[in-house]
Amino acid sequence: MDRIKETIDRITDIDSSLMEKAQQHLDNLTKPQGSLGKLEDLAKLVVSITQKEAPSLKNKVIFTLAADHGVAAEGVSAFPQGVTAQMVYNFINEGAAINVLAKHVGAKVVVADVGVAEELKMQTAKLKIKKIGYGTKNIIAEPAMSREEGIKSIEAGIELFEEEYANNGIDIVGTGEMGIANTTASSAICAVITGAPVEDVTGRGTGIDEAALSNKIKVIKKALGLRQPDSKDALDVLSKVGGFEIGGVAGIILAAASKKVPVVIDGFISAAAALIAYTLAPKVKKYMIAAHCSVEKGHRIILKHMGIEPLLDLNLRLGEGTGAALAMNIIEAGVKILNEMATFKDAGVSEKEGVATGLL
Amino acid sequence: MDRIKETIDRITDIDSSLMEKAQQHLDNLTKPQGSLGKLEDLAKLVVSITQKEAPSLKNKVIFTLAADHGVAAEGVSAFPQGVTAQMVYNFINEGAAINVLAKHVGAKVVVADVGVAEELKMQTAKLKIKKIGYGTKNIIAEPAMSREEGIKSIEAGIELFEEEYANNGIDIVGTGEMGIANTTASSAICAVITGAPVEDVTGRGTGIDEAALSNKIKVIKKALGLRQPDSKDALDVLSKVGGFEIGGVAGIILAAASKKVPVVIDGFISAAAALIAYTLAPKVKKYMIAAHCSVEKGHRIILKHMGIEPLLDLNLRLGEGTGAALAMNIIEAGVKILNEMATFKDAGVSEKEGVATGLL
Repeated sequence: MDRIKETIDRITDIDSSLMEKAQQHLDNLTKPQGSLGKLEDLAKLVVSITQKEAPSLKNKVIFTLAADHGVAAEGVSAFPQGVTAQMVYNFINEGAAINVLAKHVGAKVVVADVGVAEELKMQTAKLKIKKIGYGTKNIIAEPAMSREEGIKSIEAGIELFEEEYANNGIDIVGTGEMGIANTTASSAICAVITGAPVEDVTGRGTGIDEAALSNKIKVIKKALGLRQPDSKDALDVLSKVGGFEIGGVAGIILAAASKKVPVVIDGFISAAAALIAYTLAPKVKKYMIAAHCSVEKGHRIILKHMGIEPLLDLNLRLGEGTGAALAMNIIEAGVKILNEMATFKDAGVSEKEGVATGLL
Repeated sequence: MDRIKETIDRITDIDSSLMEKAQQHLDNLTKPQGSLGKLEDLAKLVVSITQKEAPSLKNKVIFTLAADHGVAAEGVSAFPQGVTAQMVYNFINEGAAINVLAKHVGAKVVVADVGVAEELKMQTAKLKIKKIGYGTKNIIAEPAMSREEGIKSIEAGIELFEEEYANNGIDIVGTGEMGIANTTASSAICAVITGAPVEDVTGRGTGIDEAALSNKIKVIKKALGLRQPDSKDALDVLSKVGGFEIGGVAGIILAAASKKVPVVIDGFISAAAALIAYTLAPKVKKYMIAAHCSVEKGHRIILKHMGIEPLLDLNLRLGEGTGAALAMNIIEAGVKILNEMATFKDAGVSEKEGVATGLL
């Protein structure tokens, strides 16, 4: 717990004075003031987070954390549990969607096993092993994990971030995950912390039918009734109904904020992890950018609870960090506008009528 | 007119059989079916437009067409008319927003003078000269241009596209423009063709105040009353209240469709040009992708009229092709998903339960 506490203690309030300076610079660039909308907002946000007047987003990193869920035994997913491990091989072999999209935007993918149900048979530096356990327990029979394991999962995320940060540098980070049945855990977390009814935060995940959806809702309700997680105690929620990768992503978010690195939250599962991080340390909110709003209906409810607007709306529901990769590209576009455009003076372009002469 | 007619005659209905094939391939990739939402839709769209099973979007080109508007004399813009020419220099010197964003997404910018009010003093192959006139006439005094000039402006766009296509190749094209007062011309076109009230399609352009907005609306209403453009005759609308760059962009759209090249429509002015192209040849609709929905209120009305959903919503209101550049990157991401991801079989990943055994 010390490592989590130390990390949270290093997260500062954001000094917005540089933001005003960035606004002034943006207003001097050869375009009508404010005409690049959210690109300008993103540039200012990155300036305020990094506390750099001309930030660079050269080192873009997406962490894709994999873990299994005991609740998969309840038939809550359209895919068998073995797919979690199979997809880890796919990530390492660069055949998954996140590999294609990360390459497209110039980001690096760091894949980690934080709790896959089997021993992964691959010897490669490309796979980070921070295994907390062989999948969580089935939440309708017992808590997903012990409180100690909940702490360890968050610490695993902090370690993953800090190792990559120290060895290769991180200018912006995206969160990602893989874990069969992890929308069930995320819906449970969402229902507890936001107080929304289970029906309103439970979706079709990888594509279950009506009967399976109704079973999924029943399973979540039963688990919440039996486990009684305390909505004010994020560690209690994480350990009773969460997942190892969800704890890990929460740790990455805390670590990123502690190092003044902007963190791009991917889909519903990442948002559930963000909710854990936010409940532990509300200050992280200012360091987060919501990549998109997924098809999973709980996603919008979590973002609303934290007061964060999603950037894209592309009907994504895959996870892995795919939405974060696309959003990173837009954020980098905003930062390049700030750094690379000519000013009115440089380009010899007349300013808005009245501005130069102070008439407006 | 022959060149326009020939171009339109070459635009074919889209054969959607390849789209189904693309869907089958997407469904075999290592992700839940349909989980990449609009990325999958975009990939299928590009397949159907190009009629290629594995299209490449290597050659990405954005055309930024500049021209002036006589109606600028009525105080409808926040910037003086000279800014159009100044911005052309800025484009050539790569200091403008479109230069930064095109470079970010790996697109080439082709800048053309189709009607700037002054002789541009630069000798560079980077600037294409297809000047129809030295700005349009003031539409409250006379028609913006003759019908003959309207035809020439569309032909200029067709020529620009075909020259670049023949010399360097174009896999996807984005439209862009620059012209002080061109939101006034675009609002007039939008009101005539969609039938929406002038108040509902007129916005603040580069950032005019309340009084100037009310004057802008009055000017457009007066011009429409005096000119009486025929909403069914796109050339009549273009020549009476349009602009040279608007005709040029319409020509680019027609030429792109005739060559089976996907065309990304940028902001409000490009959408007004798309409306001209669509009125001339409704078949172009299937070749167009709307990059985003801008702050200019007429934009949404034009897209609704044509039945096209915008891809991004980033509060942009700059034009130049900036939104098109960002959207191109998302479209290319979709195409790469189609081309580069591993299939379930390749990766040894189990399919959705019941799929392999035919139970669902």
